[in-house]
Amino acid sequence: MRFDIITVLPALLESPFAHSILQRAQKKGIAEIVVHNLRDYATNKQKSVDDYQYGGGSGMVMSIEPFAACIEKLQTEREYDEIIFMSPDGVTLNQSTANELSIKKNIIILCGHYKGIDQRIRDIFVTREISVGDYVLSGGELPAAIVVDAVVRLIPGVLNDETSALSDSFQGELLDAPVYTRPADWRGHKVPDVLLSGHEAKVNEWRHEQALERTKTRRPDLLE
Amino acid sequence: MRFDIITVLPALLESPFAHSILQRAQKKGIAEIVVHNLRDYATNKQKSVDDYQYGGGSGMVMSIEPFAACIEKLQTEREYDEIIFMSPDGVTLNQSTANELSIKKNIIILCGHYKGIDQRIRDIFVTREISVGDYVLSGGELPAAIVVDAVVRLIPGVLNDETSALSDSFQGELLDAPVYTRPADWRGHKVPDVLLSGHEAKVNEWRHEQALERTKTRRPDLLE
Repeated sequence: MRFDIITVLPALLESPFAHSILQRAQKKGIAEIVVHNLRDYATNKQKSVDDYQYGGGSGMVMSIEPFAACIEKLQTEREYDEIIFMSPDGVTLNQSTANELSIKKNIIILCGHYKGIDQRIRDIFVTREISVGDYVLSGGELPAAIVVDAVVRLIPGVLNDETSALSDSFQGELLDAPVYTRPADWRGHKVPDVLLSGHEAKVNEWRHEQALERTKTRRPDLLE
Repeated sequence: MRFDIITVLPALLESPFAHSILQRAQKKGIAEIVVHNLRDYATNKQKSVDDYQYGGGSGMVMSIEPFAACIEKLQTEREYDEIIFMSPDGVTLNQSTANELSIKKNIIILCGHYKGIDQRIRDIFVTREISVGDYVLSGGELPAAIVVDAVVRLIPGVLNDETSALSDSFQGELLDAPVYTRPADWRGHKVPDVLLSGHEAKVNEWRHEQALERTKTRRPDLLE
């Protein structure tokens, strides 16, 4: 699977893609993540990628031309399944969207900045608009990293222990039960007895009850 | 405002905090963002920060001791308003939580990894659990960066143009209207005439209609 990410801040994305699971996925050749500097596609002599917005108002708007030039160059090299624009008014990312994207082959992600991107980029090129949540961020870079992380970890072979991804919160319908590790007693705060019992059926029952209870309390909407 | 972020992957957070608005906020002395390597607080000779989970099952659980040691050291240095744990089963981040956090002084953020963190850390130390959305990620680092970004940009003086933050999506009740910049005609795709009219009242009316229409279509829940 390949991600091409187009951004004015390629350096911001260096460390998130160079560590942990995303690094491992790239080393194994399972995922390729290429970050493109939008400024390399600026067409005017000032190398600007934004301009004042029509109709007035504060905030700069990212121009159509550099995005079009970068996207069209990439499209001559391979076919893309999706061109995603990260935007607070996109469809909110959830685990089922992550699952769906994890079986695609080539995905372009556009990172917006400033006041937004020229609407024509969205109308002409973008196939899917995704929001990571109802909050405003400085740009689409961290959201793009979130999408890549959520998706890449689902590709078979990326995680060492495949059952781990399947038992995560949101893959089932319940939140995870509480987890504990050593020491069994920390300054008088003890691990629940059942987890030390060695009785697998009882442990499973306790975990299911706890997961159900936690979901009821914290996220009743997931049970509906 | 100060953020102390505790993680096993401090290097992953290097570039997101070294660019753009977060860099500017730190240079201006408005925000201080300190990343702590949890491994520096490991107490055993293997410098391990995780262990097998009680009750069995795949995935390692992060131990209470290194987190406790790091948090307690920080607490001798200053008072903290919040100790936040980034977790998919936390309360979903929204703009009003970001607003609320932006008036705090000192915040610790714990990044989970692997199967999760020992429940006692959550019970004893954590004051608030935050999720950035209903999807599973490799760890709490990107979510921590999201929280810091969403919060820091709200602090007065961080953004160059203060009206920009206030007119963002989610600060009002409507999504943003489409934005356009030059050229007015790109391969036959034209900017709406009203935006070129120079008639401010008509522009404002059009923007309001568009924002309302977009919100109705994409996020009717925001209007309820």
